[in-house]
Amino acid sequence: MPATLSRFTPVPLEQASRLLNHGPTVLVTSAAGGRRNIMSAAWSMPVEFSPPRLAVVIDKHTYTRELVMASGHVGICVPGAAFADKAYAVGSSSGRDLGARDKFDAYAIPTVTGPVLGLPLVEEGVAAWLECRLIPEPHTEAAYDTCFVEVVSAAADPRVFAGGHWTFDEGNADLHTLHHLGAGVFVCAGRTVRAKPLA
Amino acid sequence: MPATLSRFTPVPLEQASRLLNHGPTVLVTSAAGGRRNIMSAAWSMPVEFSPPRLAVVIDKHTYTRELVMASGHVGICVPGAAFADKAYAVGSSSGRDLGARDKFDAYAIPTVTGPVLGLPLVEEGVAAWLECRLIPEPHTEAAYDTCFVEVVSAAADPRVFAGGHWTFDEGNADLHTLHHLGAGVFVCAGRTVRAKPLA
Repeated sequence: MPATLSRFTPVPLEQASRLLNHGPTVLVTSAAGGRRNIMSAAWSMPVEFSPPRLAVVIDKHTYTRELVMASGHVGICVPGAAFADKAYAVGSSSGRDLGARDKFDAYAIPTVTGPVLGLPLVEEGVAAWLECRLIPEPHTEAAYDTCFVEVVSAAADPRVFAGGHWTFDEGNADLHTLHHLGAGVFVCAGRTVRAKPLA
Repeated sequence: MPATLSRFTPVPLEQASRLLNHGPTVLVTSAAGGRRNIMSAAWSMPVEFSPPRLAVVIDKHTYTRELVMASGHVGICVPGAAFADKAYAVGSSSGRDLGARDKFDAYAIPTVTGPVLGLPLVEEGVAAWLECRLIPEPHTEAAYDTCFVEVVSAAADPRVFAGGHWTFDEGNADLHTLHHLGAGVFVCAGRTVRAKPLA
């Protein structure tokens, strides 16, 4: 499937951590040497606001890890509720097994091309994406499968993230973020509560 | 406030990662040299199932970081929706400023005593807790404020987590996990979706 044009709104880098602050499950995309891949990852988090840096666990046996180490680039996409079936599918299969095809084709996932790193990124059924550069940390990559990355571009669907803020309401239920509980069961972002100041 | 007796159900260590798999905001508790503290942290994640290991970002300027480095122990509690005001309060104030008091007393947060490490842990308004030992990693602690820990005991409120699985329903809304969007606004765990297998 050829890449389509982005319809997302750019997110300033100083707001990029807000895309992951609430702990959504993400899709990790990668490309190197003419191959590309997508997997899901429940384990990621911001580690710094500015420069915007993240940590993401990518098992050393995965095809994604191989492509990330070869390219030094990591795409992170934040899927919405409507993407649950595909998020689980790309998290339970390997792109190594597909021969000339890849998981984007196998699961009919259209891509856009990242503006800075040229990564394959997903927008259909997705709330936001980030393009990142790997910060090489051989020890933590080996000991904890934990990869540190720095965000170099980000964008979001303005129906769910705009002006630096998430809005989850009945009108955008398909874009409510997914949070993997385990074994293909996700809990979706639900009601919003605003903390009241305590004396 | 004296510690009370735990009313939670133990969680086997091989299931401990499930308590954080969906990205909830947590409370980090600590104690050293007769002092104790509690802060909230939006940035944590599992990094390994077995042994159960986590990464949590604890800013090097915080009082919590000082106590964690002194003791080598980290308490992680998973607050429910009813705890939102207190979660934000303990995340926006420092235990250093309270003189002889501490934040547990200042915000009327009762504690239980962790069975393995003796950490102060919270159950009232909270869904689960984990006691952890710090795995010293001076470089990532300094460069990314990222602390790696290993879980040594865990327990959960059986109304929301039992048999290794979360159940979020109308009957336990106060225990639905909190996920910090920013500036005191949280989104709660909402509806559950189960991925359907794709061809």
